[in-house]
Amino acid sequence: MTLPFRRVAVLGAGLVGGSFALAVRRTFPTVHISGWDRSEVLARARERGAIDEATENPASACAGADLVYIALPVEMAIRLMPEIAAAVSPEAIVTDAASTKVAVCTAADAAFSPPRLFLGGHPIAGRERGGIEHADAELFRGAPYVLAKPASAKSTLAAAEERRDARVAGFLEMLGAIGARPVWLEASEHDRLFAYLSHLPQLAAVALAETVLDGAGEAAPLAGPGLVDALRLAGSPYDVWSGICRTNPELRGALDELIAALERVRGRLGNAELGDDFERANRLYKMLRRIE
Amino acid sequence: MTLPFRRVAVLGAGLVGGSFALAVRRTFPTVHISGWDRSEVLARARERGAIDEATENPASACAGADLVYIALPVEMAIRLMPEIAAAVSPEAIVTDAASTKVAVCTAADAAFSPPRLFLGGHPIAGRERGGIEHADAELFRGAPYVLAKPASAKSTLAAAEERRDARVAGFLEMLGAIGARPVWLEASEHDRLFAYLSHLPQLAAVALAETVLDGAGEAAPLAGPGLVDALRLAGSPYDVWSGICRTNPELRGALDELIAALERVRGRLGNAELGDDFERANRLYKMLRRIE
Repeated sequence: MTLPFRRVAVLGAGLVGGSFALAVRRTFPTVHISGWDRSEVLARARERGAIDEATENPASACAGADLVYIALPVEMAIRLMPEIAAAVSPEAIVTDAASTKVAVCTAADAAFSPPRLFLGGHPIAGRERGGIEHADAELFRGAPYVLAKPASAKSTLAAAEERRDARVAGFLEMLGAIGARPVWLEASEHDRLFAYLSHLPQLAAVALAETVLDGAGEAAPLAGPGLVDALRLAGSPYDVWSGICRTNPELRGALDELIAALERVRGRLGNAELGDDFERANRLYKMLRRIE
Repeated sequence: MTLPFRRVAVLGAGLVGGSFALAVRRTFPTVHISGWDRSEVLARARERGAIDEATENPASACAGADLVYIALPVEMAIRLMPEIAAAVSPEAIVTDAASTKVAVCTAADAAFSPPRLFLGGHPIAGRERGGIEHADAELFRGAPYVLAKPASAKSTLAAAEERRDARVAGFLEMLGAIGARPVWLEASEHDRLFAYLSHLPQLAAVALAETVLDGAGEAAPLAGPGLVDALRLAGSPYDVWSGICRTNPELRGALDELIAALERVRGRLGNAELGDDFERANRLYKMLRRIE
């Protein structure tokens, strides 16, 4: 397989960054991968063979890279965007893996200018446990991988004529090689959809877990497998989610709608109209299963 | 192993009743099991070896049984209680498997008089898919099995001096033999705890699924594994849940508390206090995992 990029920099070597590095390494063994993260994470990433070189700061990781993969918490990615833009080679492509896209793409539009190229991305791949320890070269296999279509002419991706740029083609080739399924969405459409598909379910799990803890926490050992599955997301760390909550403005409205749905269900506890709610829930259940 | 009961009647031969019959049959091969359900369910239960005899009505199933196991939707169990009480032998023990206990035990207290004996029960065992097709002799293994302590002197169980009655001892022996872990709770305490541990999570999944369907249903194929797990309960059938919603008066207050928790989370989207919510959710997550 020809090598779309010779030198890759991974900023953030946790579950996603570490898995990307492992997947790239497995598919393209001759690629050179530099990494930046906390030193203990980098040490572990090196032990696992995810990176060849541990660097002291984002700029050194980016130096000489032709692909820069940002897998940092979203607000850290935004904060570092000017530093990254200043450090990368004009021929490089920079992409990210954050769970909200409008804020990151807006920051990139402000920091990057052609021929430097930024492409927003969001791999729909997660694990119950995060961190480099759980990184896996197969994490992306079969999973959708959202790429952000340029919404404004200011976008460096629009300037690069979207998919026709060789660097974008190279990144798509790399995603295909590691088994991901690219899906193009506008950043705002991504944020709206994932407010419902991911961010609202996360906050619903947090609120449900708190309510169960207060009402029956002492009886947790009596819970059945239904609750254990329903609250898998309740184990997610706040440090990953704080920035997502702050950078997805669609989330507040989605919460309003969930509260309204719960109020409707509460009003129907004793009557047969509750059957309509179950029917609609059953419908989504089946839609989700078709893809399992 | 000595046989605590020679003739068992199973009213309702779906997932729970069918699994109980299969488990009893495996552990006590000489037991005779009669069943009552819709004729197609009984045919399938017979094919699977769960029952020896299919009966036309609850009274014929109960005739001659020394253990009657009611695994019917809760409101049907309540409605049939007088008919069952009239049909059973005075030496029999009758037990149920419904998900709420106060309403069933109250109906039984009204219908049964000593020496007939009713013992309320709730096996904390479920599967994603219901029905005799998914019945499994191992369904109860390792799972808690709540038994209702008598709350009033009117209870036939109180009259039978609780656990000292040989029939109760026999049923406990049978539960132990099929791998269940009996836990005694007062019916009202059971209903309060399971409002949080089971019934609220069910309705939360329904309301969340509806909200996701309306907001991003067309994008369901983009959902990650977190949503698929979080909405496993969204596939539950209304016909099982309608009666649970109508017979657990604690559920309304639990819904109020979940709505209040979601409102609190909504108010904290942009600020660090949301970290406290994640921390409490993480705590319950860990409590639930210890038992997995």
